[in-house]
Amino acid sequence: MSSNPNEKTIEKKITPRLEDYSQWYLDIISVADLADYGPVKGTMIIKPYGYALWEKTQEILNKKFKETGVQNAYFPMLIPEKLLNREKDHVEGFAPEVAVVTHAGGKKLEEPLVVRPTSETIMYDTFSKWIQSYRDLPLLINQWANVVRWEMRPRLFLRTTEFLWQEGHTVHETEKEADDRARMMLDIYRDFAENYMAIPVIPGVKSESEKFAGALRTYSVEAMMQDGKALQYATSHNLGQNFSKAFGVKFIDQENVEQFGWQTSWGLSTRTIGGLIMTHSDDKGLVLPPEVASIQVIITTILPSEEEGKKVNKRAEELSTLLKSKGVRSSVDPRDIRPGEKYFEWEKKGVPIRIELGPKDIASDSAILVRRDTGEKIKTSLDKIDEAVGSLLKEIQQNLYNKALEYQKAKTKTVDTWEDFVKAIDEGNFVLAHWSGEKEDEAKIKEETGATIRCIPFSQEKESGKCIKSGKPSSGRVIFAKAY
Amino acid sequence: MSSNPNEKTIEKKITPRLEDYSQWYLDIISVADLADYGPVKGTMIIKPYGYALWEKTQEILNKKFKETGVQNAYFPMLIPEKLLNREKDHVEGFAPEVAVVTHAGGKKLEEPLVVRPTSETIMYDTFSKWIQSYRDLPLLINQWANVVRWEMRPRLFLRTTEFLWQEGHTVHETEKEADDRARMMLDIYRDFAENYMAIPVIPGVKSESEKFAGALRTYSVEAMMQDGKALQYATSHNLGQNFSKAFGVKFIDQENVEQFGWQTSWGLSTRTIGGLIMTHSDDKGLVLPPEVASIQVIITTILPSEEEGKKVNKRAEELSTLLKSKGVRSSVDPRDIRPGEKYFEWEKKGVPIRIELGPKDIASDSAILVRRDTGEKIKTSLDKIDEAVGSLLKEIQQNLYNKALEYQKAKTKTVDTWEDFVKAIDEGNFVLAHWSGEKEDEAKIKEETGATIRCIPFSQEKESGKCIKSGKPSSGRVIFAKAY
Repeated sequence: MSSNPNEKTIEKKITPRLEDYSQWYLDIISVADLADYGPVKGTMIIKPYGYALWEKTQEILNKKFKETGVQNAYFPMLIPEKLLNREKDHVEGFAPEVAVVTHAGGKKLEEPLVVRPTSETIMYDTFSKWIQSYRDLPLLINQWANVVRWEMRPRLFLRTTEFLWQEGHTVHETEKEADDRARMMLDIYRDFAENYMAIPVIPGVKSESEKFAGALRTYSVEAMMQDGKALQYATSHNLGQNFSKAFGVKFIDQENVEQFGWQTSWGLSTRTIGGLIMTHSDDKGLVLPPEVASIQVIITTILPSEEEGKKVNKRAEELSTLLKSKGVRSSVDPRDIRPGEKYFEWEKKGVPIRIELGPKDIASDSAILVRRDTGEKIKTSLDKIDEAVGSLLKEIQQNLYNKALEYQKAKTKTVDTWEDFVKAIDEGNFVLAHWSGEKEDEAKIKEETGATIRCIPFSQEKESGKCIKSGKPSSGRVIFAKAY
Repeated sequence: MSSNPNEKTIEKKITPRLEDYSQWYLDIISVADLADYGPVKGTMIIKPYGYALWEKTQEILNKKFKETGVQNAYFPMLIPEKLLNREKDHVEGFAPEVAVVTHAGGKKLEEPLVVRPTSETIMYDTFSKWIQSYRDLPLLINQWANVVRWEMRPRLFLRTTEFLWQEGHTVHETEKEADDRARMMLDIYRDFAENYMAIPVIPGVKSESEKFAGALRTYSVEAMMQDGKALQYATSHNLGQNFSKAFGVKFIDQENVEQFGWQTSWGLSTRTIGGLIMTHSDDKGLVLPPEVASIQVIITTILPSEEEGKKVNKRAEELSTLLKSKGVRSSVDPRDIRPGEKYFEWEKKGVPIRIELGPKDIASDSAILVRRDTGEKIKTSLDKIDEAVGSLLKEIQQNLYNKALEYQKAKTKTVDTWEDFVKAIDEGNFVLAHWSGEKEDEAKIKEETGATIRCIPFSQEKESGKCIKSGKPSSGRVIFAKAY
């Protein structure tokens, strides 16, 4: 047990979700000791327990990315302003958000430098030098980095001025290959969301108004939070040849003809931790899915006397060592404080299984496993504790996903009239409705209800209907929702 | 085999070390495809093969740090100018090097923001809020991050305007505990340098003039490059209470008395990759120690005909799979190009063992292992190839370390006259000489010879003598050298 920098937070109260959802979210971050604001408005300090979630994310995604041939690299954070300006849509999208270095080394710089809001421009300028022929393709690069986008309404994890992310950037010979890659990476995000973070997501394509600045087409996976609002969990862009033309990313093809490359970019950021918090947590604190929990099992010991206490803590360490040898991320809380204090602390921190162990348990060769997700207590014999823990972790992981999926389904409404649409949006739902495909209708809907098109889901079947706003013909339903 | 973004570099020549050491260094980086300059002067693009060395560094150090109770976290990159200004020595040391953000979100900022050159100030401002009592101590935090220090004479890996590093920051109850921690982390750096990067280092303490801005005492491990110049490999600082007093890092001790914390910070950066290159590489290219090589074994196949080629590549994949199952980082180069081309490429990239495999080898159930460090060729039967590779990797690791240590010893001179001193420095040696302990003498020596005190080595025995410069009494020898 390392020292806990925020013992004081243990005392903090959690605002109930129904009373004030926004405050509840911030309270969870505080009591679980995940993060705090930095001294510059909108910046975030990610504390060790929160950062461990990001380390887990890196570990899982790195493995999946590398299996598809992607290699990690690192590009400079400071981008000459003229490079950022080279792709028209891109600079229009990002210029209002960038932070600019004007002075360095005690002098005013000749050209201002932009702190990367994303790295398309600096990477593709370089790619144009790396790539000569089709033999250099595909080029599959990823980087883990910090980026800065000035935020007017910051919110821990969800919108921070500086955030951490990974950004993948690839170049291909053909349009199809690039599109396949963009979809492949989106599917890795879906897999990570669903099978690790236990967050059900809806994969689909963004409308023109919502796509990435400079992309041909943006794919996303969208998640539903417990207030019914959508969180864009991750995006993957088919960039077409927009950037390759702006930056001269060219190659000699197999017929010896010069061609522009077909590109993709795709990213997932620390905002997913905000999504994790808002998907599973409850009024008692954070709830973590076992797959991403840095501590999956905490053994809280009951210490009636110093002498007995030593024995109990020793036995707890033995059990923890056994669990670790089976691949379980287990830890012991041996502190000599009231058992209730220990329970509450680990409940707030969302550890999936708490094992209560005292002298009586040891005498009867058993222990109580307490599930964080349901609160259920399960008596287990100590000689089979590793099996019990192993299967319970799987069960908790599945249960959290199932619960979130049920919630998402229950809060997804199919509507056909404007009145029903407004009501369903007001009540905090995902709404499946027909849309004309026209920007004007999309803009009016946003203006009148606050809802945006989250995505045109891949799973949606063709269905002719009339636009919920204008009554113009539509060939399928899209998902509308208010979003973070 | 993923595509190689720089096939063109294969053609590049390497300047011999003796002809032009600086150019040789840059040539190695280029032919081994490790890094390149970015568009902003002094910035660096770390290419996948170079970044893999940093990933290995992270993997090894993270494990060692965590074993001592250190936890990773992340602090904002943008620091309000007034925070940086709070510790007098610190700001004097760093102010001339910082990059400053003056505009963001389309507006001029009210207060300029400094891009972190190091994070003492922002972290300790936060620590002052986290810490209340001795129960919150020790606080053991590390972060992996990018930092910016404006460089007038940039050099890939060694001095770049932006670089990657880890910075550890700890707070303790007592002076002794802090000093022990600073020494403990220095020893982790020594272990990493010697047992992974195969770089012998000299641990010691810095002189007052060479210590970190704001530290009480700076420890370092110093390595010798092949031109006899020193590279400060990593540093660990006992900060005393300088920062805790400036930032109010206080705690209530066990006697209920308020005390200032005792602090340390310690860091290792991407410059260690520069040190790695300059320790082992030769005129044929990069030489990597097996422990940090992302590819330890490359199987280069000989493909006389398409039909035979298929069989050889298939057998090579089988052998590679076998080696991987034994924990060896093995890869196959199946390309249908001249075998010589393959050999040269992997030689330039410094892969420790190359296995040559052709139809004749398969027929005789054997293969040739070629050592990168000595060039030696070893015929091995295929059914024992995993054992042969395993022991050869260990031997190469040890040989590289031994060679570097012998070189360091041969190029370390003990001198007692000014004439011998100047000569030994001119010839590119580490020089063990007496020093009065006075700043003025140190400054004169630097001015006249370019040599600085690299460290006062821990291993040095007490010995009375006279300062090489002033003749004043001295109680022991220190290491002088020119340095990167």
